[in-house]
Amino acid sequence: MAVPSLVRESGAAPARTTVARRDPRPDDVVVRLTHCGVCATDLHALRGSDPAAFPLVAGHEMTGVVDAVGSAVADLAPGDRVAVGNIVGSCRVCEECRAGRENDCAAFPTLTYGGPDPYSGGTTMGGFSTTIVVDRHFVYALPEGLDPAAAAPLMCAGVTTFAPLRRFGAGPGVSVGVVGVGGLGHLALKFSRALGAHTVALTSSGAKRDAALALGADDVVVTSDAAAMAGAARSLDLVLDTTGAGLDLDPYLRALRVDGTYVLAGIPPKTLAVDPMSLIVGEKRIAGTGSGGVPITREMLDFSAAHGITADVEVLPADRLGEALDRLARGEARFRYVLDVASA
Amino acid sequence: MAVPSLVRESGAAPARTTVARRDPRPDDVVVRLTHCGVCATDLHALRGSDPAAFPLVAGHEMTGVVDAVGSAVADLAPGDRVAVGNIVGSCRVCEECRAGRENDCAAFPTLTYGGPDPYSGGTTMGGFSTTIVVDRHFVYALPEGLDPAAAAPLMCAGVTTFAPLRRFGAGPGVSVGVVGVGGLGHLALKFSRALGAHTVALTSSGAKRDAALALGADDVVVTSDAAAMAGAARSLDLVLDTTGAGLDLDPYLRALRVDGTYVLAGIPPKTLAVDPMSLIVGEKRIAGTGSGGVPITREMLDFSAAHGITADVEVLPADRLGEALDRLARGEARFRYVLDVASA
Repeated sequence: MAVPSLVRESGAAPARTTVARRDPRPDDVVVRLTHCGVCATDLHALRGSDPAAFPLVAGHEMTGVVDAVGSAVADLAPGDRVAVGNIVGSCRVCEECRAGRENDCAAFPTLTYGGPDPYSGGTTMGGFSTTIVVDRHFVYALPEGLDPAAAAPLMCAGVTTFAPLRRFGAGPGVSVGVVGVGGLGHLALKFSRALGAHTVALTSSGAKRDAALALGADDVVVTSDAAAMAGAARSLDLVLDTTGAGLDLDPYLRALRVDGTYVLAGIPPKTLAVDPMSLIVGEKRIAGTGSGGVPITREMLDFSAAHGITADVEVLPADRLGEALDRLARGEARFRYVLDVASA
Repeated sequence: MAVPSLVRESGAAPARTTVARRDPRPDDVVVRLTHCGVCATDLHALRGSDPAAFPLVAGHEMTGVVDAVGSAVADLAPGDRVAVGNIVGSCRVCEECRAGRENDCAAFPTLTYGGPDPYSGGTTMGGFSTTIVVDRHFVYALPEGLDPAAAAPLMCAGVTTFAPLRRFGAGPGVSVGVVGVGGLGHLALKFSRALGAHTVALTSSGAKRDAALALGADDVVVTSDAAAMAGAARSLDLVLDTTGAGLDLDPYLRALRVDGTYVLAGIPPKTLAVDPMSLIVGEKRIAGTGSGGVPITREMLDFSAAHGITADVEVLPADRLGEALDRLARGEARFRYVLDVASA
């Protein structure tokens, strides 16, 4: 079986390919993939400007079933439901790795695709594929009750929003603003609400108002409405910007309360312009956040299972990756496309 | 008595004046001032570009002796040694005021000079003066053992550095970088060391190396030395930028460890350019900080007395304000000029 997912140059149509995987080491797990989410990072990677990045197989929000395990893997067995995210390796010995912050590995983690594979010596290839071989440390048991298609996006969009919500204290008595109601934002709304925080969706138009409320927002602020934004001044403890758009920060910093934090949960494509007074008055902060290490990813999966949280997905056959990318680029996703890679 | 401190237009020489103070209210304290520090904020205010800011009497790092108290003031008496800082009023009812964060008052605090005086209806006038009338809430008992000349700069430079060091956890096991060895920086080094943090001075040239070590730095990094800065990568939990210069942030963000925070303890004169990846990789933060409310200012004074910390000052007669400003502008201060306003 082969998935049409090999992109030979930026913007090219995906071509059918069979990804060669390394022979499993004793610590490896061979996963037969069933689903893989389509994230904005995939879009940027497959349509990016770096010729050295190609050819590329993307995809880093995977669910599937264990096909085989290496001799040193005792706690997973063929047939187990599992998930894999955007990191498939790290040094395991640096201070961050030992603290369970493998995403912050001092030696830089092994990314699921497009990075050097320390075992094969080649370049890692992602989850738009029918199988993958991953060190057991980075393979997560998929909790019972989570649908594998709808759970796949938890492995990037989920942990990228859950981790900063937890790190910055989202919970009862805390007001959280989620900027953007998309792939990341719709999960951030669900998590924030389930964590008990007062949850406000900030969206550029009113078109997603009802959707935001249905996803768990207690309130919606349309950011193009200057009066509404002014009314939100000093109201939020935490703003989670899921847009990755490089927004003008000032209106959002004004919406923060004293000591509040604005978190970049997406990756803006440009340098940010920050008025220092917007941070100094009210003693506010801007924070970066990555995805998450193993412990917080496990916690996110358990929390999702306990609260019945998965992504709102549209599942597409494996041969429609190009269409998914086009529609994602046009902002049509409600809220995540997931490829049924088993259909390849 | 009159201090030559009235500046009629930006950059003008200070003219002798007698500042009219309001009649004391029951909650007021009349302070006979003895000393007032000369801060970079004074320089910017007195040589700034806003014509509406003049005429102006600056000065906001004051020590002196109580001359009289209003009928409702029970805990201060004539003859008591006191200090006053950059805030002389706040609403006292908002959430921040009630939390002792008067500097973050939702109605904006009454600044010691150049702001609207809610009692007289005029404009507040600062501490380059022989007396001041201040609400008792913003008058601090000067702890025994603190020299009033050397303690005056604690009231702005001191609390502006002490407050973020405390807020961001400076102490044993924590590495603190102090950028700039000047009025704020030299106090930051003393406080950080006394708090038990591993303290690193980051200075643009080697000229202040010995001074930084004498002030308490465990180590000194010369920031113009690219190899030294590269060697400092991922080494600091907290960077306190006391320069107010609007530095290129990237080298300092690289010096932060995972989860580290870069604090703007000065006020950069320009928009900051922030590469989002410099925050996202390592999940780092940029924070603004103000001066401090009443509780942290009291704590800072007590801590200073307990650890014998005051500013390194050069005391000048009251008629040499213009000279102090010139020398401050040229970077000659080692490390704070203080006017002996009693000499007026």
